[in-house]
Amino acid sequence: MITRILGIDPGLRITGFGVLDKQGQQLSYVASGCIKTPDGELPERLKVILLSLGEVIALHQPQQVAVEKVFVNVNPQSTLLLGQARGAAICAAVSAHLPVAEYTALQVKQSVVGNGHAAKEQVQEMVKRLLNLSGTPSPDAADALACAICHAHGGMGLGGLATKGFRVKGGRLI
Amino acid sequence: MITRILGIDPGLRITGFGVLDKQGQQLSYVASGCIKTPDGELPERLKVILLSLGEVIALHQPQQVAVEKVFVNVNPQSTLLLGQARGAAICAAVSAHLPVAEYTALQVKQSVVGNGHAAKEQVQEMVKRLLNLSGTPSPDAADALACAICHAHGGMGLGGLATKGFRVKGGRLI
Repeated sequence: MITRILGIDPGLRITGFGVLDKQGQQLSYVASGCIKTPDGELPERLKVILLSLGEVIALHQPQQVAVEKVFVNVNPQSTLLLGQARGAAICAAVSAHLPVAEYTALQVKQSVVGNGHAAKEQVQEMVKRLLNLSGTPSPDAADALACAICHAHGGMGLGGLATKGFRVKGGRLI
Repeated sequence: MITRILGIDPGLRITGFGVLDKQGQQLSYVASGCIKTPDGELPERLKVILLSLGEVIALHQPQQVAVEKVFVNVNPQSTLLLGQARGAAICAAVSAHLPVAEYTALQVKQSVVGNGHAAKEQVQEMVKRLLNLSGTPSPDAADALACAICHAHGGMGLGGLATKGFRVKGGRLI
């Protein structure tokens, strides 16, 4: 059975998305990209996020959606704007009646790189390897694909293995 | 010509809505109420806000939407949650292709009470008077109706008069 997963890395200026298929433990790349919103009024920008993700969902027909939890910014006004962008991203999924799972950046990086504090470049590199991509995806698309991979791994990655009688130390199974 | 306006006071737990008709300078009440979300996962709660406001829009067919700008909370996590609720409310409007105007609580209170720092009870009382209601609306419904009234007044209230050669001092025209 194939499960199609849409990962989303929400942002007001750039929202990354990535679609992959999971069959058993096998993951295969379907699509990815970035939605860029124009400068201007907030409602128009949220509309671009909502409708563009709606198009991605209509085109690729994912069965499950994984959305990255966003960082709380030092600037409360930025936090509020980011929250609204994330709200629009989640609305695109729930209005298509899709189940939405949420993962923190720490969980995503832990799952993909094995290190919750990995650099952006490490995430891009590991996404490229795990999905056998010929090129390196952009940072936002890579984060979205990483979020989908995290969900495919049951949101646990190496942490998931650790519960099966193994222990993880320094990123290695012992 | 009658313009039907939907005012929204967004919140994650309670989202107030209020619908009124504007004909010339005459305002008349159409409907108001509260959307309460159940405890639980965020995506489900946003879905309730999105779909319930979608029902309000489908039922009352407003032509314009006015949404209150939310306060930045001292707790950044609360600000993020509120932002997502507000994003869902705006998505309900833009997915119905309605224009959305935004007003701060200060603008709304200034427009309805004539004092940007009016208490909740004053807003409820003035909304009741301005719309000739037989009962007092709940605080959230009153805020939503007040936001719609603010929009009907061109978002300016007494502040609007002040630009027409008058000055406002202590809430009075001089």
